[in-house]
Amino acid sequence: MKLSKLVAERTKDIPNDAKMKNHILLIRAGYIKQVANGIYSLTMLGQKACLNIENIIRKEMDKCDGQEVKFPVVMPKELWDMSGRYSSIGSEMVRFTDRQNRQMLLGMTHEEAAVHLAKNWVNSYNQLPCMIYQIQTKFRDEPRSRGGLIRVREFTMKDAYSFHINQKDLEDYYDKIFNAYERIYKKIGLTNFISVKSDNGMFGGNLSHEFMFLNENGEDELVMCNNCGYRANQEVAQCVYESPNKEDEEPLQEVFTSYAKDINEVSNYLNISPKKCTKAVVFAIKGEKGSVVCFTRGDREINETKLRKLCKKEIVPYDATNDADFCAGNIGPYKLKAKNCIVYYDISLKGVKNLVTGANKKEYHYKNFNIEREMGNVEYYDISKVKNEDMCPNCGKKLKVSNGIEIGNIFQLGTKYSSSMGMLVKTSDGKEINPVMGCYGIGVGRNLACVIEENSDENGICMPISIAPFKVHITPIRYEDEKVKKIADSIYKDLIENNIETLIDDRECTPGVKFADADLMGMPIRIVVSPRSLEKDLVEIKLRKTGEVIMCELNQIISKINSMININ
Amino acid sequence: MKLSKLVAERTKDIPNDAKMKNHILLIRAGYIKQVANGIYSLTMLGQKACLNIENIIRKEMDKCDGQEVKFPVVMPKELWDMSGRYSSIGSEMVRFTDRQNRQMLLGMTHEEAAVHLAKNWVNSYNQLPCMIYQIQTKFRDEPRSRGGLIRVREFTMKDAYSFHINQKDLEDYYDKIFNAYERIYKKIGLTNFISVKSDNGMFGGNLSHEFMFLNENGEDELVMCNNCGYRANQEVAQCVYESPNKEDEEPLQEVFTSYAKDINEVSNYLNISPKKCTKAVVFAIKGEKGSVVCFTRGDREINETKLRKLCKKEIVPYDATNDADFCAGNIGPYKLKAKNCIVYYDISLKGVKNLVTGANKKEYHYKNFNIEREMGNVEYYDISKVKNEDMCPNCGKKLKVSNGIEIGNIFQLGTKYSSSMGMLVKTSDGKEINPVMGCYGIGVGRNLACVIEENSDENGICMPISIAPFKVHITPIRYEDEKVKKIADSIYKDLIENNIETLIDDRECTPGVKFADADLMGMPIRIVVSPRSLEKDLVEIKLRKTGEVIMCELNQIISKINSMININ
Repeated sequence: MKLSKLVAERTKDIPNDAKMKNHILLIRAGYIKQVANGIYSLTMLGQKACLNIENIIRKEMDKCDGQEVKFPVVMPKELWDMSGRYSSIGSEMVRFTDRQNRQMLLGMTHEEAAVHLAKNWVNSYNQLPCMIYQIQTKFRDEPRSRGGLIRVREFTMKDAYSFHINQKDLEDYYDKIFNAYERIYKKIGLTNFISVKSDNGMFGGNLSHEFMFLNENGEDELVMCNNCGYRANQEVAQCVYESPNKEDEEPLQEVFTSYAKDINEVSNYLNISPKKCTKAVVFAIKGEKGSVVCFTRGDREINETKLRKLCKKEIVPYDATNDADFCAGNIGPYKLKAKNCIVYYDISLKGVKNLVTGANKKEYHYKNFNIEREMGNVEYYDISKVKNEDMCPNCGKKLKVSNGIEIGNIFQLGTKYSSSMGMLVKTSDGKEINPVMGCYGIGVGRNLACVIEENSDENGICMPISIAPFKVHITPIRYEDEKVKKIADSIYKDLIENNIETLIDDRECTPGVKFADADLMGMPIRIVVSPRSLEKDLVEIKLRKTGEVIMCELNQIISKINSMININ
Repeated sequence: MKLSKLVAERTKDIPNDAKMKNHILLIRAGYIKQVANGIYSLTMLGQKACLNIENIIRKEMDKCDGQEVKFPVVMPKELWDMSGRYSSIGSEMVRFTDRQNRQMLLGMTHEEAAVHLAKNWVNSYNQLPCMIYQIQTKFRDEPRSRGGLIRVREFTMKDAYSFHINQKDLEDYYDKIFNAYERIYKKIGLTNFISVKSDNGMFGGNLSHEFMFLNENGEDELVMCNNCGYRANQEVAQCVYESPNKEDEEPLQEVFTSYAKDINEVSNYLNISPKKCTKAVVFAIKGEKGSVVCFTRGDREINETKLRKLCKKEIVPYDATNDADFCAGNIGPYKLKAKNCIVYYDISLKGVKNLVTGANKKEYHYKNFNIEREMGNVEYYDISKVKNEDMCPNCGKKLKVSNGIEIGNIFQLGTKYSSSMGMLVKTSDGKEINPVMGCYGIGVGRNLACVIEENSDENGICMPISIAPFKVHITPIRYEDEKVKKIADSIYKDLIENNIETLIDDRECTPGVKFADADLMGMPIRIVVSPRSLEKDLVEIKLRKTGEVIMCELNQIISKINSMININ
């Protein structure tokens, strides 16, 4: 490819909100161009990098006996009614009416389509296990797209679906895919990733893992133990607390706390640690009257994912400010007036004596509140978030909470879809069962973004050879010089003929501009053809990532480059 | 791939309306499964065949210096407002509102996105010519999907967009793409295709060609001259008529024609040839009052595409039955009462004397109507369809009208998009101009369908080697026999290791079922491993298309198959 013809300019026009490296560099180097909020066009650079990632994924899926298929982007409502997800998924799913007035949707995931394809055709144990996958455009109407290709609305995804005769077989296959995913990340150039247990969310089923790229800008919180290797997404990470100090129960006492409302204010006002206070968090239930009131320890935050799982309701933040039922800022379990409310106590409160809690009365709290004494026997649930330095639920050592970006997920789905959609398979003893399913997703663009987060420096992108849009970038110094042009062009031709994807900077501009552009775009191997080195029949070969430079004889270029590509 | 695990059953469940070969065979052989009207899932068989076609297209586009990019499927209204197409395209374009209440659409074509990507980045003559293309899912809400993959609502398409400094450069490049398209069709296995001049339709611009696969079920009519090679889509084919016989003008005469309404009835009633009658066709104008009335010769049909181009209005059929302005069945130019109507005369009427025409009065026509005498000077336009055996506009010999299926199109767009979207490029003498554009489309699934129309027989599909999902289909006879299994498995393993895509029928069923299934699915090379031939250390190799059979020694299989694949 001649750089002069490449529809992809280096640009300084980056959006004001671009904070993440991948966002700034993908735009500055001309890999992507924004079309709308969370919607990008990919230039040849972006698309070639994505196709390379896709082919790496494809090979690994084929190794797992995957069959590449293609499901529709646009699906009819009826198909999604079978699983119940047409109504259970919110406005992130695009719905529209076609010209025949039929309700349609844009697929965000394809469990229903996978069962539709396999149903009736796969109906006997000797056809199992089998796995089908596709690589395809998906659209999710994300409320907040951000971070370049990290969180977009339209993206290319590989999604795979496997069918099994029983849970054991699924588990064996799940491990295979787990290993394939680790190989994929390593091949595309990621090292800074881990896997964590996660919440199954809208997919349903039992067990799932997310692969997480560790990054301070990640939206996910990951809980890790460096001692025993425990890892979980914050959404499902288990909280464990040290036994509270034993102390005698003091008499309940109503105290004036003035305008002190939040935990810090109350704790300061009374000079009592937040760990000895109860914090109240109220949620509304979507489409229902009533509310959910959670009490946790003053130094804790409620984990909404855990709470959702517990109460099995769609909860949303509740505005209690103007509600007569709640005395906002002074809510407590004792003498709570609110009707139709479900109350949950977090396990952090279990056994803590003489708590401070709201008195459900303006400007007053209670001191020496003792849950069992005041409320009788209550149940405690794990509904708070893990904090840094909390105890590991596995080994008791200190946990670390880090941020991460989800780069893939794998789910054990059970029979949620096969049973709701009536897919039946005969077992070897003639019974009919719903097959057990797994599903496995990986986003192409987001992985490219993470590769750039990990592989870049102050001058630009450092593309790993495995996914680089061009392996070699030829930079002729003084291309207008006849000899330079002739030799640069012939190296270019040779490389192309040897199936080595090459970019040549055929512009007439200063070496400074050429080097800066080459650094920014980040092809892994640069060949500098200059009048001076040509005097000795040499060219300079420079590795973008390490900066390593070697001089190479003209007739050795192809073999040298080939060996570099094969090693890396 | 083991056939037992393939998620793609041979089936007898085909839709009642399946008439075309590709439709019946793609479903029977398990290449596709219908999800909704005009929406299909592709199984591994269908998807692999499509990927093979995509790669053939990709190579040819790259040879034309194409840059593979990716535009979004979902685009914002604003982008399409710039070209005016958001409002000019009808309900075949899906529009929806996103969660932020912004109006979005599903792309059917990407001229706007192409200009958006190139604009500002391509701004100088020395960056031209350049071409960007993508291979991507598109959705068109077709009113009538039909014929299997011939006319669907969701499909994969290669669409390419080129930019040029002037019309001459576009024309040179257009020829290159024209030749690339011919190579693509031949490579994927089509021979029965032609190219014709066509209408630019919603794309705009000047010249365009369609590549047409000749097929009796095609929806397009093609006009061809076997003498001089003239070829055009009916939509734009020029009508030429012999000079009418000279005769004296007789006096105009009102005649009773009873209930005779259409041309045949009137012609029979009066015993006068339809060629001496005028036929009236009335259209309404969308969004406007008034109508368009066309008069043509009684033996002719109005060509709506030509008419649309002439009147530059969106016309729709008009129901004149209950309209006081029109006396349906007796409409004629003379004393036509209708107001706000535009009247056009077709050139077939020019110079025809003593015509029969409606008298705008129930049960009456005129005889001896002479246009110039009764109406004064009028203009004549070419607004009728060419009929079989009409005169060639080029050489005067007889034309042939055949049916065809559009398998690709190429357009010279001019500056329609670059000017409306403000894309500017500096010429070598410093002026700023809008670049001239071309666009080039080819539908992947429809081409697969046409390949099957041309390459199949009464037993099933005959896949060309170039696009076959598997090159080899191994059919072991008595797979339960230990020796057969061992050798069949080892041939399978050898082929896979030699990168030859192979399917093995590992089922325990009768040879009859296996052969029938293999014929239906249509892999080009079949290897039959049977106990009898193994006695002589031989296997049978059979070509699906020709039926040719050779016996091959076990140790010659790989080289034999390789040579077959490379020749074909």
